[in-house]
Amino acid sequence: MTGRHEPARIGDRVEDIDTPALLLDLDAFERNLQRMATYAASVPVRLRPHAKTHRSAAIAQAQIALGGVGQCCQKVGEAEALVRAGVRDVLVSNEVVDLRKLRRLAVLAKEATVSLCFDAAESVDAAGQAACEAGVEFGALVEIDLGMWRCGVAPGEAAAALAQRIDATAGLRFLGLQAYEGKAQHLQSHAERVDAIEAAADAVRASVAAIERAGLRCRVIGGGGTGTYRLEGGSSLWTELQCGSYVFMDGEYAALSDIDGRPYADFEQSLFVLSSVMSMAGAGHVVVDAGLKAYTLEKGFPTVHGRPDLRLVAASDEHGTLALLAPDARDTLALGSKLRLVPSHCDPTVNLYGSYVCVRDGRVEALWPIFERGASS
Amino acid sequence: MTGRHEPARIGDRVEDIDTPALLLDLDAFERNLQRMATYAASVPVRLRPHAKTHRSAAIAQAQIALGGVGQCCQKVGEAEALVRAGVRDVLVSNEVVDLRKLRRLAVLAKEATVSLCFDAAESVDAAGQAACEAGVEFGALVEIDLGMWRCGVAPGEAAAALAQRIDATAGLRFLGLQAYEGKAQHLQSHAERVDAIEAAADAVRASVAAIERAGLRCRVIGGGGTGTYRLEGGSSLWTELQCGSYVFMDGEYAALSDIDGRPYADFEQSLFVLSSVMSMAGAGHVVVDAGLKAYTLEKGFPTVHGRPDLRLVAASDEHGTLALLAPDARDTLALGSKLRLVPSHCDPTVNLYGSYVCVRDGRVEALWPIFERGASS
Repeated sequence: MTGRHEPARIGDRVEDIDTPALLLDLDAFERNLQRMATYAASVPVRLRPHAKTHRSAAIAQAQIALGGVGQCCQKVGEAEALVRAGVRDVLVSNEVVDLRKLRRLAVLAKEATVSLCFDAAESVDAAGQAACEAGVEFGALVEIDLGMWRCGVAPGEAAAALAQRIDATAGLRFLGLQAYEGKAQHLQSHAERVDAIEAAADAVRASVAAIERAGLRCRVIGGGGTGTYRLEGGSSLWTELQCGSYVFMDGEYAALSDIDGRPYADFEQSLFVLSSVMSMAGAGHVVVDAGLKAYTLEKGFPTVHGRPDLRLVAASDEHGTLALLAPDARDTLALGSKLRLVPSHCDPTVNLYGSYVCVRDGRVEALWPIFERGASS
Repeated sequence: MTGRHEPARIGDRVEDIDTPALLLDLDAFERNLQRMATYAASVPVRLRPHAKTHRSAAIAQAQIALGGVGQCCQKVGEAEALVRAGVRDVLVSNEVVDLRKLRRLAVLAKEATVSLCFDAAESVDAAGQAACEAGVEFGALVEIDLGMWRCGVAPGEAAAALAQRIDATAGLRFLGLQAYEGKAQHLQSHAERVDAIEAAADAVRASVAAIERAGLRCRVIGGGGTGTYRLEGGSSLWTELQCGSYVFMDGEYAALSDIDGRPYADFEQSLFVLSSVMSMAGAGHVVVDAGLKAYTLEKGFPTVHGRPDLRLVAASDEHGTLALLAPDARDTLALGSKLRLVPSHCDPTVNLYGSYVCVRDGRVEALWPIFERGASS
């Protein structure tokens, strides 16, 4: 948008950033990147981080520089942005059924390796048509339903039947399975997550066996997320991890507990919504300038980083109301005071911003644009 | 964003619009515009529609062409976009405490009448400074707290004290009160809304009286929303209505009941998220291509327009899962079938899109850009 106000300039102090702004703590972010890369290098599994979380060319490139084999995304528009950013191996970890969207993917497949997921024969046929028209080939995964009540065919024979259909379709190359156990990511205890991934592994094994009986081989089995990646990674079954949130963390992931019952701490919070106190006229509360257009609530209210004496208890479009939980909480605040909110769910929050304000040592070091902000097709 | 895919072209059939897309039914929208304009012309009150709902130059201009005295908005970025769009009277119906933001408003005040709200003496001083530096004048409203647990000073003497402070500040012109009773908008029964606005009116009267005792006069009393506008409009107290959602309606407003106990029907639904069925592989559900990045959930799930046999029951970033509530529901659908979702809360949903796809008689008639998409400062 012409004339749109930018929240900061490089070199600005954090306290001078205009709010609301999406803050990325570069030190924490880089530690997160490195930890996942170190893990992935320690197991026989490839890392293909999910771009739906970050929608950033800079972050995609950083993940690939540390060993990522490419990127996942959910939308054709994201795939277009990734290829424009120089990513040369993109998996749309999702179904694409519209022929015009498939033709857009075929354009990308002239420049990059492009794969996508299937759970219907009609989509296999349409994708084959789009690929053949453009003289390209798509990699193809059969998505299996792991009980998410979302996409995917039933594990086992149905998966094998669709794999055969793919194998028989010009323009498609059968690669294997998409096996993401999304509901397992946020099960609170480690034991619950282990059980869920063991059940998923059974479904994967049944599907691999049926596909092998049909004379095909699964070279790729994709899945895994920030809550379970060590389980898929150590399974000797999954071949690619599709984690996204690990770069940022959020309130939902922070609520998990680890194998020893302690808070999950594989990664640290690097992403914040920077807000300013805009009203102190009320008696028991203060108001910040970040509301429903600055974070989303489907996983609960953001928390206030480092401030157990403040709790976000209400939000309207452009207001967030903080309850004061300690007698002296008000005395520590003034109009304009900056507070860091921790989003409960990172992906849809990032979706509301045009750029990351990247900070280190109290200063703005970079502004990284966010692509495909908002609803993406 | 360079290269971003547009959801439609003018002249396209509705069934050819790429999804997810934000659909505006122009006939319903124009009837809504006209109904509110007709009402406002029938009472001694001005209409100053709220741009936070629509963030559209075209809609602002249509509202003003039908008699609106200008626009409200919540953010400085919105005010900038409105003035760029030619709106010459803008009220920021919100507190602005940062001197740099106030200076941005002062730039606008060279081209347009700019007013804003106050609930703190420090902000009065800062706004006066910004106005004097630029050689402009801001209109100034004292926001009173009507029990929303948000901004505003206590009604009565505190309001009068702040009015006097404004009156004594060079660069500011005291106009009156901001008296928006937000929590009343969604009280389900008409009787509850009447009670709430009567209580608000008492607070307004007490404030007006205290301000008159201090020797000042309230020429403007702003407030009102889509759920209560006839109450403020008929009060002989409020002078400006700040309704926003009436142009679109949403699930939350549709849940109200009217004075006779029937569903609230002053306005009709004109705004939809157009989605496509992307998976039918599951047994009891289908999946559409619109999830948490295509609508927000803080007021509940969207409903499916005209389809009582389908219910949105789960959403992830890019998936919406619809339960099939009738035995033959599945038979009426195919991969690619278009479904219109009715957002539960219009403002944060609009916030996710780059344009309205405006349709009439089954065809795309216009694409109206949306300004300040996402978090705005």
